[in-house]
Amino acid sequence: MPAQKKSSKNELKISAQDIKDFATKILLKNSYTKNEAKITAEVLVEANLRGVDSHGISRLKRYVDDVSSGICTPGKNPKIIKETPISVVLDGQGGVGPYIAQLAMNLSIAKAKKSGIGIVNVRNSNHYGIAGFYAEQASQKNMMGFSSTNSAPMVVPTFGKNMVLGTNPLAYAFPCENKKILLIDMSSSVVPRGKVEVHERLGKNIPFGWATDENGETCSDPQRVLCNMLEKKGGGLLTLGGEGEIFGGHKGYGLSLLSEILTAGLSQGAFSPNTYQGQGKVCHTFQSTRLDLFGDSKKIKKHLSDFLEYIRKSEKAKGQKRIYIHGEKEFELREKLLKSKITFDSKTTENLYYLAEKFSIKL
Amino acid sequence: MPAQKKSSKNELKISAQDIKDFATKILLKNSYTKNEAKITAEVLVEANLRGVDSHGISRLKRYVDDVSSGICTPGKNPKIIKETPISVVLDGQGGVGPYIAQLAMNLSIAKAKKSGIGIVNVRNSNHYGIAGFYAEQASQKNMMGFSSTNSAPMVVPTFGKNMVLGTNPLAYAFPCENKKILLIDMSSSVVPRGKVEVHERLGKNIPFGWATDENGETCSDPQRVLCNMLEKKGGGLLTLGGEGEIFGGHKGYGLSLLSEILTAGLSQGAFSPNTYQGQGKVCHTFQSTRLDLFGDSKKIKKHLSDFLEYIRKSEKAKGQKRIYIHGEKEFELREKLLKSKITFDSKTTENLYYLAEKFSIKL
Repeated sequence: MPAQKKSSKNELKISAQDIKDFATKILLKNSYTKNEAKITAEVLVEANLRGVDSHGISRLKRYVDDVSSGICTPGKNPKIIKETPISVVLDGQGGVGPYIAQLAMNLSIAKAKKSGIGIVNVRNSNHYGIAGFYAEQASQKNMMGFSSTNSAPMVVPTFGKNMVLGTNPLAYAFPCENKKILLIDMSSSVVPRGKVEVHERLGKNIPFGWATDENGETCSDPQRVLCNMLEKKGGGLLTLGGEGEIFGGHKGYGLSLLSEILTAGLSQGAFSPNTYQGQGKVCHTFQSTRLDLFGDSKKIKKHLSDFLEYIRKSEKAKGQKRIYIHGEKEFELREKLLKSKITFDSKTTENLYYLAEKFSIKL
Repeated sequence: MPAQKKSSKNELKISAQDIKDFATKILLKNSYTKNEAKITAEVLVEANLRGVDSHGISRLKRYVDDVSSGICTPGKNPKIIKETPISVVLDGQGGVGPYIAQLAMNLSIAKAKKSGIGIVNVRNSNHYGIAGFYAEQASQKNMMGFSSTNSAPMVVPTFGKNMVLGTNPLAYAFPCENKKILLIDMSSSVVPRGKVEVHERLGKNIPFGWATDENGETCSDPQRVLCNMLEKKGGGLLTLGGEGEIFGGHKGYGLSLLSEILTAGLSQGAFSPNTYQGQGKVCHTFQSTRLDLFGDSKKIKKHLSDFLEYIRKSEKAKGQKRIYIHGEKEFELREKLLKSKITFDSKTTENLYYLAEKFSIKL
């Protein structure tokens, strides 16, 4: 691997392929099988390529730590618990999240090819990266894709004080004309914890309506929020729509419950408050639905693409230059970063050099 | 029918059964068939029983006006456009919304009984009332239920100025233990237009973050918002998460698009901006999914119900007494109002007496 440039701010600049190779090697040194290492490195780097740095290579150290702590056990293959022509329930056996998730998504697509729809629910898995990575794969095959996962509890329900819900992302992918993809990939909280952490590092207040304090009231001090979350003193992230019901916080709370039900409920696995107690026990769901169940795929894609173009071209609010369709920002950044390099912040860079040294892998 | 009490404020108090009978008779005088009138009256009164007055009997006059204006043509039966063992696409032929929707939901449940899942998409229909009414029916049969509809354009996309999206509700229903139902029924806008109208009538400002003005900027004057919306001068309701991206407005925009795709996209019907131009042309989707695809229904319901009880019992935020599970508020109010009477505000009461006189039906 060529020597990488380290900027004056200790920010690593490196190509997607090089950091993927590095991550793969690190994971292979930590009991990951070849297949597990490859898909995990890919999911992490894909997050960085799309600008979702909170789910990117910055998590490599955590994936490594999860092996030594027993949260995750590489080398495990998921077991089929129940199967019908349109559905499967898998037990992930505590294995590697992205590996199990990729198998499950493949299964969902294969079921949909035969039967029109394929739903695969998974229990006893681990952190699987960005939900959109999986949903998107169905839409590359003329299907609608859906995926969701629960997570460690970080979110408070409307009128509640304690973290009883995960950040629970919902990802929906739809094929459009010219191989374009509409990709909605959203946590059901207002923001992920990573955004609060960024504000803390910069010494900036967070907006009221992102998170609550130890009394369960909205709070602008990121340090107080993060400290309370760590010590489980009360408070946490708010659901989409914010505090109370005035701006629809109960709707985000509903979306969070939706994710819990589809992942942990249907697979009879661990709901978010019961994850990460010894083992990860994270639950996921994957769904593929063939477009031609409803008519000519080409016509449906054209019909949808025409509407999206109508929205794009509609008048902008004062001071705004562009109306985005979901996924556009991310895919455009991806294209740009694939041609250039990805920049990692100083904290991530520090962690990467720590791993490089510890496992004697060149960076 | 017994004489009804009209309070000093001109608010009609009447039993659910009596107002349902009245609405049925009014609709029968307006070309509705017996079946169309019965289900439409039921859906409207069900909304009032659950406290969703914006979708209740206050809409009866509109349903009547829609017949004379040609928006809705009673007596039409939906036509099957495409059918597979797990899916149907229907053309509503411009008929009565709740009637078409009920047929579609029945079809979805019947498909699911045979094949595990049933998805029914509908184009060329009309306003169908509350989405939850349909989703709920699947959950009474040990299935998960889902329904969504698009609507007249009233919502602006993130960074946009014009109303290019409907209020697009998403309703998810899940069966729980003891025949209880978890029912998430939410518009994908922060609030429905009805809430802005209530503030205008009371002479109160609306919170910043509900709607935008003619420049597409958040605005607290309800009269300005409503006037601009009526004259299509720019501005409209904001998506869940509010203005811009700071509080996740792009997520609500994504949910609104999700509804457009599942309703108008898959049925190749009219997207929200193309509804109500001569005909209603509203599109819906209905989905039923058998719980036993994933395991023993009883065990899944117990697993989910235990989690919901854990949330209910978790600590409350300061000043709060209760954490609700979705649907509880509505079902508790329903039980109460079924034993007593429903109260209609003075404007609705006035409209009801207008209809009573016009069509010679006693109220």
